Amino acid sequence: MELAIELAKKGTGAVNPNPLVGAVIVKGDRIIGQGYHARYGDLHAERAAFASLTEDATGAEMYVTLEPCCHYGKQPPCTLAIVEHGIKKVYVGSDDPNDKVAGKGIAFLREHGVEVETGVMKDACDAINPVFFHYITTKLPYVVMKYAMSMDGKIAAYTGKSQWITGEAARQHVQETRNWLKGIMVGCNTVLQDDPALTCRIEGGRNPVRIVCDSHLRIPLDCRLVQTAVDVPTIVATLDGASDKAKELQQANVQILQCKEKDGRIDLYDLMVQLGAQDIDGILLEGGGTLNEQALAQDIVQEVQVYIAPKIIGGAEAKTPVEGKGVPDPNGAYRFAFDRMEQVGDDILLRYRKEKREICLQES
Amino acid sequence: MELAIELAKKGTGAVNPNPLVGAVIVKGDRIIGQGYHARYGDLHAERAAFASLTEDATGAEMYVTLEPCCHYGKQPPCTLAIVEHGIKKVYVGSDDPNDKVAGKGIAFLREHGVEVETGVMKDACDAINPVFFHYITTKLPYVVMKYAMSMDGKIAAYTGKSQWITGEAARQHVQETRNWLKGIMVGCNTVLQDDPALTCRIEGGRNPVRIVCDSHLRIPLDCRLVQTAVDVPTIVATLDGASDKAKELQQANVQILQCKEKDGRIDLYDLMVQLGAQDIDGILLEGGGTLNEQALAQDIVQEVQVYIAPKIIGGAEAKTPVEGKGVPDPNGAYRFAFDRMEQVGDDILLRYRKEKREICLQES
Repeated sequence: MELAIELAKKGTGAVNPNPLVGAVIVKGDRIIGQGYHARYGDLHAERAAFASLTEDATGAEMYVTLEPCCHYGKQPPCTLAIVEHGIKKVYVGSDDPNDKVAGKGIAFLREHGVEVETGVMKDACDAINPVFFHYITTKLPYVVMKYAMSMDGKIAAYTGKSQWITGEAARQHVQETRNWLKGIMVGCNTVLQDDPALTCRIEGGRNPVRIVCDSHLRIPLDCRLVQTAVDVPTIVATLDGASDKAKELQQANVQILQCKEKDGRIDLYDLMVQLGAQDIDGILLEGGGTLNEQALAQDIVQEVQVYIAPKIIGGAEAKTPVEGKGVPDPNGAYRFAFDRMEQVGDDILLRYRKEKREICLQES
Repeated sequence: MELAIELAKKGTGAVNPNPLVGAVIVKGDRIIGQGYHARYGDLHAERAAFASLTEDATGAEMYVTLEPCCHYGKQPPCTLAIVEHGIKKVYVGSDDPNDKVAGKGIAFLREHGVEVETGVMKDACDAINPVFFHYITTKLPYVVMKYAMSMDGKIAAYTGKSQWITGEAARQHVQETRNWLKGIMVGCNTVLQDDPALTCRIEGGRNPVRIVCDSHLRIPLDCRLVQTAVDVPTIVATLDGASDKAKELQQANVQILQCKEKDGRIDLYDLMVQLGAQDIDGILLEGGGTLNEQALAQDIVQEVQVYIAPKIIGGAEAKTPVEGKGVPDPNGAYRFAFDRMEQVGDDILLRYRKEKREICLQES
C-alpha cells in the first residue's frame, strides 16, 4: 500500500478534479503490475496497473488507495476490470465519498466473488486527497492559507520590505503548492503593492487559475495579472460587476465574478460557491493580513501552511500574517490541529488543518 | 556515553555555576559504576561513579561527558581518582573551556598511563551545557529569550488579553526552564500589566533570581515581586539607583543595580556584565516586545524558544513578541540557527540558537 500511495502522488496537479489514486498488483511475493491515475481523462490507477502487467493476474491481489469505481464516467468502471482479470482479493485504503460510488464498488466486487479488505492504511490514503474529499462532499474549494513569516510573526519589515523573509528552498516549495492546487487567490492590495504574476514556475508545472478579491475594482488594467489574462485564466471577484471597469477587464479576457456583499466586502462564502461551481476544487490563499482575517472569519480555510524563517524582524508597526481587528480573547481564537513539520532549507514549514472537519453542504 | 549524558541531565537546576556532567564505568560488557554531578559542592560525576562501584575498577574504562578536572576546587581533582582506581581508558565528550582545566586533565591522565579518547559524541555532550560553555568563556549570562505566540505571531489579542495563548503542558514546560536557568528577567511593563510572581512552580524546583529592567523605577512597591523579595532574590536594574524610590525598594530587600545608560534606556550589555559578576550564568528573558527588541539590538540573546499555539488571533493592533521599531529590511534581520522542534501538548516549541557563536570577552 505504501508503494500505491507513492504512485498516487505522481499524478499531483494533473488529475483535478479527480482524486490521486495508485494501485499495485501482487502475485505471491512478486509485484506484477502497478499504475496510477496520471492525468484527468486518462486511465484510472487500476487499469493503468493492469496495462503494466508482467504476467497473468488470475489469483493475484491488488492494493488500491481508493475504493474502485463502478460507474461509467470518462473511463469504464474499474471494478469490471478487476473481476475480468480474476483478481482474488482487493485491499482498499480510502472509501470513496462520491455518491456515485460510495460502497457500490466494494459491493460489486464481493458479489462477483472478489474478497475485499477496506480501511488499509486509511489515514495515509485519505491524506493524499484532502482536496478531493473536501470538494466532493461540499462542492466548495479546499482553501490552503499560506504565509511566510519571521520567528516573531512578521511578513514584512516596518518599511514594507518583504523580500525575502524565507530562503530560496521555501520559495521553490511554494511553487509546488501552486502546482498542486487549481486556484490561487490574493487581495487587491497585494496586486497594487507587488504586481505579482502568480504563475507556477516549475518546469512542466501548471499555472493556477488566478483569483483577485477586489470589492471595488481597484486593480490596474496594466498590472501583470490583467496583461497576461489571455494566456492564464484570471478571475476578479467584485461587488461592482456591472461597472465600466468590469467591462474593460472583460475585454482583457478577465472573468468577472459578481459576488454577494457581506459587511461592505465580498461574501467569501458566496465566492467559494461560485468558484466550486467552476470546478475549482482547491485554492492557495496568499492574501495579505486583511484578506486572511476575512477568510478565517467567514470560515472558508481548511488548511494553514506557515513558513517560519530563522530570523527576527521586530517592529510594532511591521505587518503580520493575519490582521483586521482580530478576536478579542485568545480563548475565542480560530483553532487548528497541528499536522506536521518540514524543514525546507533553513526555514520551517508548519502545517495545520482545520480542527473539526465539518461537512458544510452547499447552499441551494 | 548516551547513558552518561542522561545521567548528567539529572543535575539540571542544581549544579550552577558548575556544568552538568555524567560518568559511566564499564568493565568488559558490564556497567560497574555510574554517577553524575548532582548538586553544587557535591561529588563530581567521576567520583560519584567511583562511589557506586559494584566491583574493582582496575583495568576498566570510563565514559565522561566533560574533560575531568585536575585542580583543587570544592572537590579534589577527578583525574587523581581516575589514576588511583586504575582506569585503563577514558572516553571524553566535551573539552573543558575553563582556563583552570583546559587540556590539563587529559594531559595529566596520559602522563600517568591512562589512555584518553576525546571528542566522543562531542556535539551531544556540548549541548547539555550551553549555559556553562557560554558563561565560562564570556563571564556573561546565557540569555534565553522565550515567548508564546499564536500561529500568526500574536502574544495577546487586541484587547491585551493574553491568557492563555498556549496550553497547560506548554506552561508547565516553561516552569522547567525557570528551574534550569538561574535568573529570569522581565521589563517593568510586564510587572505593571500582569503583576507576575516569576517563581518556579515545580515541586522541589528552585526559584530563579528575578530581574526587572526598570529605567526609571516605575515598579509599584505593592507588587508581588517586591512583596516577596524577602523570600526570593529580586533585582531591579535602573538608571535611578540613587533615588528615594530606590531606597524604599532596598528596604523591601530588593537589590538595586545602577546601570549605564544607552539611548535613554538601560545598557543591557552593562547589566549582563554586572549580573555575570554575581554568578548569574543564565537568564530566561520573558520580556515584552519592547525589552525583547532591545535585547536583540544589544546582542545579549544566545537562544530563542518560540512556543506556537495552534490558533490564530489576528489583529493589526494585537501585540507581537518583538516590537520597538524593528529592522528596516528582512535581509538585515537578527538571524538564528534552527536547533530543534518539540511538541508540547497541542503546542509546538521551536528552539533556535544564535547563528554565530562569538566569544565576546568581558569588558575590562
